[in-house]
Amino acid sequence: MGNNAAPEEVSELIAHLRSVLPHDGTRDALITSVIPKLLQSIADVAQALRSSHHVAAAGTANTFGDDQLNVDVTAENLIRDAITHCPSIVTASSEEDPVERPVQHSAPSLTPSTKEQYTLAFDPLDGSSIIPANWTVGTIISLWDGPTALNQPPSTAQIAAILGVLGPRTTAIVALRIPGSTTTSQSCFELALDPSSSQPTPTWKLTRPTLTLAPQSRYFSPANLRAAADDPAYMALVTDYISRRCTLRYAGGLVPDVVHMLVQGQGVYLSPVTARSRAKLRRLYELCPLALVVECAGGEAFDPVDGGRVLGKEVGGCGETGGLVCGSGEEVREAVGRLVAGRGGQGVEGL
Amino acid sequence: MGNNAAPEEVSELIAHLRSVLPHDGTRDALITSVIPKLLQSIADVAQALRSSHHVAAAGTANTFGDDQLNVDVTAENLIRDAITHCPSIVTASSEEDPVERPVQHSAPSLTPSTKEQYTLAFDPLDGSSIIPANWTVGTIISLWDGPTALNQPPSTAQIAAILGVLGPRTTAIVALRIPGSTTTSQSCFELALDPSSSQPTPTWKLTRPTLTLAPQSRYFSPANLRAAADDPAYMALVTDYISRRCTLRYAGGLVPDVVHMLVQGQGVYLSPVTARSRAKLRRLYELCPLALVVECAGGEAFDPVDGGRVLGKEVGGCGETGGLVCGSGEEVREAVGRLVAGRGGQGVEGL
Repeated sequence: MGNNAAPEEVSELIAHLRSVLPHDGTRDALITSVIPKLLQSIADVAQALRSSHHVAAAGTANTFGDDQLNVDVTAENLIRDAITHCPSIVTASSEEDPVERPVQHSAPSLTPSTKEQYTLAFDPLDGSSIIPANWTVGTIISLWDGPTALNQPPSTAQIAAILGVLGPRTTAIVALRIPGSTTTSQSCFELALDPSSSQPTPTWKLTRPTLTLAPQSRYFSPANLRAAADDPAYMALVTDYISRRCTLRYAGGLVPDVVHMLVQGQGVYLSPVTARSRAKLRRLYELCPLALVVECAGGEAFDPVDGGRVLGKEVGGCGETGGLVCGSGEEVREAVGRLVAGRGGQGVEGL
Repeated sequence: MGNNAAPEEVSELIAHLRSVLPHDGTRDALITSVIPKLLQSIADVAQALRSSHHVAAAGTANTFGDDQLNVDVTAENLIRDAITHCPSIVTASSEEDPVERPVQHSAPSLTPSTKEQYTLAFDPLDGSSIIPANWTVGTIISLWDGPTALNQPPSTAQIAAILGVLGPRTTAIVALRIPGSTTTSQSCFELALDPSSSQPTPTWKLTRPTLTLAPQSRYFSPANLRAAADDPAYMALVTDYISRRCTLRYAGGLVPDVVHMLVQGQGVYLSPVTARSRAKLRRLYELCPLALVVECAGGEAFDPVDGGRVLGKEVGGCGETGGLVCGSGEEVREAVGRLVAGRGGQGVEGL
């Protein structure tokens, strides 16, 4: 299998990528190699998770020996391995190993053949706490133009994000924001893995060509809800959603919670931060990719700590964290305004 | 494949069933035929769901034609087909077709070979609203002694419940309560489907031999939360959980939400009812099986409408509905007490 060759099986995917991206040849590696390979690695992670029973180890005896592997590490290794076949991915870091390092390619002679250079930032398996209960979890992948994601303007340098949704089916959300010579191409769509296709060249079907978030919402997803014990503004927001008879959905996994909004076409996801309930979301591996996905679907994503747009601020280090309010635009602005006003317009102390 | 023969592959399952059930030969069909067949049908439903893209149809265009099947109907048919191979299942009804009818067996001559007679009640695919987002959903199956589930004492006549958990993996919770000559055998355990095993005889591994719910909990799962807009006692319960810094988990699917508690070993699931937010849970297909599972794990399950134990009241008709508070015993009794007291000790008007 050639590293830059598009297997015939991914043609529906590639045809769609060609239809939404600039036709000037500047993104050929992205279309024919990088995105297909990353999606393939998501299929690999899904398969590894399906076969993993390590999760039964938590607190109870089980009958497995060699299945006691850390599926987080397996997922990390599968994605690291996939990118050795993508010469245009020159740098990578992950939530499991949060240091940007050059990628060692399996066929180094291919490296000069591409003019595209990308940096990968990924969280191989987000939602560890709900894996034991067999709930849907996710893989978060983002791509940045150039040899680093650090100290770059996220709203233009982060050009793609992929959410792998590991549930009863294996699906993926792809968001693209590609600067062109005249306009920026922006899109957000859903793919589903055809389970009858076989590895190593899985087939993805285009199931939702355009995902769009309406400005208003009847759904809410309150993360880090313990913060509402300290933050009266957050408590008031939650009781207001209840009084408005909004529908609660909160899996406690960033990927399933945001994907629920995208598929429903509406929603607001809140992860406020207080001095006692600290920020846990990583800007590079979680906040920026999720914000790109939400913005490409027409929604908005703010950090309630400073009240600013998530993608409005450079990532200065791989370990940076923040809060998140994202989803339907009007709901997001209303919630962020109330959270910031509740602190007298101040940021969160000590962050 | 003989209908009563135990395929070699299910031996770990059968060995465990033999270890927890009476050894007097009165449940041989249950052990070697009924439970393995029902588990096999859950594996079939998981495979059907994995291959189904009909869920993409909701609200958006997609590229599929023949995948636009109703996966609920597919699941119903798979389970109906499975039981035609179980001579001891003589009656069945389901949430999709809620009328008790005799089962037509594929090999009627086998029927007289068993002295056991069971009635099946099932919900083939619970959680339709979260299927489009690719969240974990479930299958609920319960078995009753004798030719009907109606007008029987649920706490003794309902002898088994199986929750199929259709997520990144396929798992199942099995609860058994078998009256014996001297004592009642009661157990609750988790199985995981080995994905390398092939149909039609999938292999299940015993991943958690004993599931137990502690009396107290730091998790809460507030269903039908719109009811809190009308019911100050429910609103106060929810804000108290938040103030106590309990952890919210609420997928909005009965199976994943209850399974999360079982795997975590604690939790309280609340689905109160008000005159405006009516009871939606079916007693025969949802409340009774879930209550059996929770009780077999040492938890409790009450109907907050009348404040009584779910299994303390006969099911008079297939369409009966109710509310549910279940999980960690002390939390359940506290919550039910407050919900009933909030109505001045009265039931819910009009129910």
